[in-house]
Amino acid sequence: MDHSDLFKRIVAKRSFLCVGLDAEIEKIPSFLLKTKDPVFEFNKCIIDSTFRYAVAYKPNIAFYECNGPAGWRSLGSTLKYIKKNYPEILVIADAKRGDIGNTSKMYARTFFEKMNFDAITVAPYMGEDSVTPFLTYKDKWVILLALTSNKGADDFQYHNEDGLRLFERVLTLSMKWGSIDNLMYVVGATRAEMLREIRKIVPEHFLLVPGIGAQGGSLREVAKYGLNNKCGLLVNSSRGIIFADNSENFAKVAGEKAREIQSEMELYLSQHKLI
Amino acid sequence: MDHSDLFKRIVAKRSFLCVGLDAEIEKIPSFLLKTKDPVFEFNKCIIDSTFRYAVAYKPNIAFYECNGPAGWRSLGSTLKYIKKNYPEILVIADAKRGDIGNTSKMYARTFFEKMNFDAITVAPYMGEDSVTPFLTYKDKWVILLALTSNKGADDFQYHNEDGLRLFERVLTLSMKWGSIDNLMYVVGATRAEMLREIRKIVPEHFLLVPGIGAQGGSLREVAKYGLNNKCGLLVNSSRGIIFADNSENFAKVAGEKAREIQSEMELYLSQHKLI
Repeated sequence: MDHSDLFKRIVAKRSFLCVGLDAEIEKIPSFLLKTKDPVFEFNKCIIDSTFRYAVAYKPNIAFYECNGPAGWRSLGSTLKYIKKNYPEILVIADAKRGDIGNTSKMYARTFFEKMNFDAITVAPYMGEDSVTPFLTYKDKWVILLALTSNKGADDFQYHNEDGLRLFERVLTLSMKWGSIDNLMYVVGATRAEMLREIRKIVPEHFLLVPGIGAQGGSLREVAKYGLNNKCGLLVNSSRGIIFADNSENFAKVAGEKAREIQSEMELYLSQHKLI
Repeated sequence: MDHSDLFKRIVAKRSFLCVGLDAEIEKIPSFLLKTKDPVFEFNKCIIDSTFRYAVAYKPNIAFYECNGPAGWRSLGSTLKYIKKNYPEILVIADAKRGDIGNTSKMYARTFFEKMNFDAITVAPYMGEDSVTPFLTYKDKWVILLALTSNKGADDFQYHNEDGLRLFERVLTLSMKWGSIDNLMYVVGATRAEMLREIRKIVPEHFLLVPGIGAQGGSLREVAKYGLNNKCGLLVNSSRGIIFADNSENFAKVAGEKAREIQSEMELYLSQHKLI
């Protein structure tokens, strides 16, 4: 899936929603705990009730890894389920990996070859040779951390050399390592006003925007400053959708929450004359 | 294990060697492939032949994750084996994790509670709240990336605000988040001359130094600029030890390689009057 395919899917679904599949075992409805693989059952229900409104799913690997080998099985089953039933949906491994070249190559092999993810989030601290091994795959994406949604983003990401802040240097250098067809950036919704400045550097790239909902970011602001003429945004919501309800109705409620966000997105897409 | 315990173990073993357990399945001797868990069998042999010379073991998680659920079982078995037979040895998860607070908390639970690692490498890009969840555990260590051994370290780590380079800002800020008893830093051996400047900022902290051997760093230089009055160094070698030989003698050869490095370390410890 390249940049243009992704835009087509956004138009078709009238949505740029990414649903974060962060299925913490302590938070999933208790009646699911009787099933053989509760995390996978939970994800399956969430996926079936939200796929109409979503163009991407993003499991955060931490929430699977913490269940040991069983967690990796849940993740594998989830991925297979999406690929089989909803092959038009982009699946992002939120893994924030990044290591010396031969190790990043190994991570790329794991997530792209063995698990068939379409995209992976990568941390930029170790520079070019920690990122490029992920960029050698056709139809796969790197989503590089630029400006994150958390408070700690202030600690290093604004570090400023002659007017160029670290996150700007990350954008400026890394955009030469890939193209708009295999490279996106993470920009937190809690820093929506910064999207205007980021768009000056990367007008065309897709941005993955976490932080609406539980973390307090505003979708309206994100759309205002982040949308470009090919949409250029994937906005993630995790807890606000998947844990909106804890009863036997959880999937239905998750679907409604996803639909609410999709409706708002449709409005912005329409206002920007993208649909 | 705190700072002072670690120094005692270094003195007892006359070594500050960390052995990197990066057991790539394609590289381990072929006769092991018949066993039930080749990666674990390989590690067990390497551990039994190197423990006399090592104060730490460091599996890089990428090399386990790539084998899926089976890889996580190999990792779990390796950890249990070390903890049972060589409880005096520090075990480091080379995972380079780091995410928003609630996710980093999940990673900390995985590596410290579920798997009983003593330490984990963490990437600093996302700042304080991505690191501190790992620092709330008694007798566990964060090893934060400061200046890495790869070429890409030049891309961002030297980004300079008013004379303060990014890796220096990482050191300066983060040293307030923890203490010399729960926080170490990664500094690549390929940048040995930088250890002198790093020691001005963190004179007392332990530094984990990868990059000797295959990556070209010099142990002599690292010792010259990095040793402090409590040693303050853990120097890692992976490929140079574990893949030194590919025959049925691989463990014996690995032991000899580890002993060579240990002998050189003993010399430097003695020259610095630490033993």
